[in-house]
Amino acid sequence: MFFHVRMDVQLPPDLDPAERAELLGRERDRAIELQKAGAWPGLWRIVGEYANISIFDVPSNDELHDILSSLPLFPYMKLQVTPLATHPSKI
Amino acid sequence: MFFHVRMDVQLPPDLDPAERAELLGRERDRAIELQKAGAWPGLWRIVGEYANISIFDVPSNDELHDILSSLPLFPYMKLQVTPLATHPSKI
Amino acid sequence: MFFHVRMDVQLPPDLDPAERAELLGRERDRAIELQKAGAWPGLWRIVGEYANISIFDVPSNDELHDILSSLPLFPYMKLQVTPLATHPSKI
Amino acid sequence: MFFHVRMDVQLPPDLDPAERAELLGRERDRAIELQKAGAWPGLWRIVGEYANISIFDVPSNDELHDILSSLPLFPYMKLQVTPLATHPSKI
Amino acid sequence: MFFHVRMDVQLPPDLDPAERAELLGRERDRAIELQKAGAWPGLWRIVGEYANISIFDVPSNDELHDILSSLPLFPYMKLQVTPLATHPSKI
Amino acid sequence: MFFHVRMDVQLPPDLDPAERAELLGRERDRAIELQKAGAWPGLWRIVGEYANISIFDVPSNDELHDILSSLPLFPYMKLQVTPLATHPSKI
Amino acid sequence: MFFHVRMDVQLPPDLDPAERAELLGRERDRAIELQKAGAWPGLWRIVGEYANISIFDVPSNDELHDILSSLPLFPYMKLQVTPLATHPSKI
Amino acid sequence: MFFHVRMDVQLPPDLDPAERAELLGRERDRAIELQKAGAWPGLWRIVGEYANISIFDVPSNDELHDILSSLPLFPYMKLQVTPLATHPSKI
Amino acid sequence: MFFHVRMDVQLPPDLDPAERAELLGRERDRAIELQKAGAWPGLWRIVGEYANISIFDVPSNDELHDILSSLPLFPYMKLQVTPLATHPSKI
Amino acid sequence: MFFHVRMDVQLPPDLDPAERAELLGRERDRAIELQKAGAWPGLWRIVGEYANISIFDVPSNDELHDILSSLPLFPYMKLQVTPLATHPSKI
Repeated sequence: MFFHVRMDVQLPPDLDPAERAELLGRERDRAIELQKAGAWPGLWRIVGEYANISIFDVPSNDELHDILSSLPLFPYMKLQVTPLATHPSKI
Repeated sequence: MFFHVRMDVQLPPDLDPAERAELLGRERDRAIELQKAGAWPGLWRIVGEYANISIFDVPSNDELHDILSSLPLFPYMKLQVTPLATHPSKI
Repeated sequence: MFFHVRMDVQLPPDLDPAERAELLGRERDRAIELQKAGAWPGLWRIVGEYANISIFDVPSNDELHDILSSLPLFPYMKLQVTPLATHPSKI
Repeated sequence: MFFHVRMDVQLPPDLDPAERAELLGRERDRAIELQKAGAWPGLWRIVGEYANISIFDVPSNDELHDILSSLPLFPYMKLQVTPLATHPSKI
Repeated sequence: MFFHVRMDVQLPPDLDPAERAELLGRERDRAIELQKAGAWPGLWRIVGEYANISIFDVPSNDELHDILSSLPLFPYMKLQVTPLATHPSKI
Repeated sequence: MFFHVRMDVQLPPDLDPAERAELLGRERDRAIELQKAGAWPGLWRIVGEYANISIFDVPSNDELHDILSSLPLFPYMKLQVTPLATHPSKI
Repeated sequence: MFFHVRMDVQLPPDLDPAERAELLGRERDRAIELQKAGAWPGLWRIVGEYANISIFDVPSNDELHDILSSLPLFPYMKLQVTPLATHPSKI
Repeated sequence: MFFHVRMDVQLPPDLDPAERAELLGRERDRAIELQKAGAWPGLWRIVGEYANISIFDVPSNDELHDILSSLPLFPYMKLQVTPLATHPSKI
Repeated sequence: MFFHVRMDVQLPPDLDPAERAELLGRERDRAIELQKAGAWPGLWRIVGEYANISIFDVPSNDELHDILSSLPLFPYMKLQVTPLATHPSKI
Repeated sequence: MFFHVRMDVQLPPDLDPAERAELLGRERDRAIELQKAGAWPGLWRIVGEYANISIFDVPSNDELHDILSSLPLFPYMKLQVTPLATHPSKI
């Protein structure tokens, strides 16, 4: 099942640089892990913004929430989730 | 180059049914044609709405505008285009 | 899987009264049918508005879209769908 | 009488972890207490957000406000309350 | 129980003048009837707008919805209902 | 002359408890004083929010601004003022 | 007493040209009359829009509403009224 | 003096095709005339929308309003005008 | 040339009182200076808000920006500038 | 390829003055460098706001994002990017 997720990131400006780098590293690793598992097939940076548009492919709402809320950056992100259905013109 | 496009469709309620079917047919054919050409890799229906989320892959802004404005449904749609860049965590 | 759906109804003011009654009758029958099937467990009228808040329980996004887009009133409604997950404090 | 309540939670990022856990524990206990009393029949997590959608069943506006403003998380939440009436198609 | 209701009126510009006068007459009579019954204690015109702010005093959500949806102007109005509780500083 | 005022209160989360109690006490006294003077005939709590809806009866805009800006909570409130006129259906 | 009023005009596109000219003529005459009476001291066109910003000087809310709702263009305008008070730095 | 203008065009869907072509022709001629006169140095199509972003260079607000309100498409456009000043980093 | 400017002031709550008084004093002096120079003919307080509506009369956009950005309160204000043209009904 | 970018700057009020001056200096140098390279042909200050409107000319979305996210002020700015196409009336 596909979901469209917009993620806007807002890190505290006074976050310690080392802590920031470590946090972003964990986020990156987790994103790669989920992509390899096929759960995160679409991931693009929105030009000019610290935000991304993602497409997730997961079996249920609960599983999507578990994935999203387990992302290291979750406490610093505003997420908008839109459920997607199959489009009649999709080949 | 990738672009995110949200398309909200609003057909006139008093559109003649035959005309409507013919219009939607042409739209469908055009969508299939563009998908086969690789310009329209992502296309999903937004659950509960007469709207879709699409990902386009085109070489320039002008070309994207030509494609979108040539869609049979263009006069009946409200489009929001967001340019996308490569995400640093994309595998 | 649970989904929250807000439905705002806007019927054409010049809709023929008989046609209107027939349409609302079909909508009512369909709503009862879906409630009996367990797909539509929550349905309330928003005070003062021709709108409702519903909770749907369906196995997939596609199925929810099929149900919603098959409602007789679908062409006259604006729907907002929010996917719901299990709340940690829910008993 | 039914009310729809959307609750968006925003805890201070620098809240002491122990204090945070204690606060969330009290909130959880209170939520369970109210559910058992039948005042809080609907409670779902909004996928991807630190927010919930709730349905309350209470005899009056005053009582609803007392319940909501007595929730341990009240100072850290933005609430939107929508009064609900019986829907004509509800079985 | 008190409720705050904002009513924005939008009559069709091509409504037949006689029909319009008859409709507004019925609305006025109904408003007077409800005020005399104590259900509509507050009613003011918003300066410069075809809109009013009202305070209703009714025993339940259902009753408020019945009153509002039975107003002759209901099909031509957009209503926003806000439930009110007793203020701790109210004398 | 009647005015509708919505007041949304946002006290600093780190305000010293004693200072907070003293401030709210002064606000309460002032509100009672103004109600007794007939300037503040309507005052209700918005269910679920730290906000109120008020009706003021004052002879001029200047006087209303003096009253509002002299409220102890004024620095911590966002106010929206709507001028009201006599409604033609008011009895 | 001063009030700030923004007026956005939206005439029906199919309004008969003669009727339109007559309507605008009456509006213009009324505006001149009110300016001469000192009730309408400020009147400017918003660049690029069929809208104006006005300053009215009237003794009461009721009088302002009577003036505004008696303007020939009133049925075709959306008005936003903001009450103004004396500014402490005004000379 | 520079001004930023966003123009959103909304032609009536039932506009006679010949009339439409004639109108757009006049608009095009006027646009070319103004560009040649140096009043309209910036003009771009917003991708995916029947809208443009323009930069005007005119000596006064009145002159800008005269130009904009004289455009053949003016009755069918929603314009947003933003005054621009010289940027300190502009070379 | 006339411009409409809305100014919303938001001073840091923890600003030292003496510093605050000094800042507001400088702002007041500058406002009086500009009014005497004829650049700031209109200045009103918005009832209930720490905001004002102003009318400026200046020869160019650049000069308006220089004036506004030189106001002592500029760093603590959100400004919205609307260019005004002569209204055809203005006497 | 042209892009329209609105940049709203919000520097922390407690930023050390020397650090601020150094940051703004680097931003200015970078802006001049990009203008000389032809990537930043349009740059204007929005009157009354710490914001600018820019026109960029770059070969791809990725390149635009790299430029924007490398600006010294990027962490303190909110950017809105709109892709532009050639306008049919552009000479």
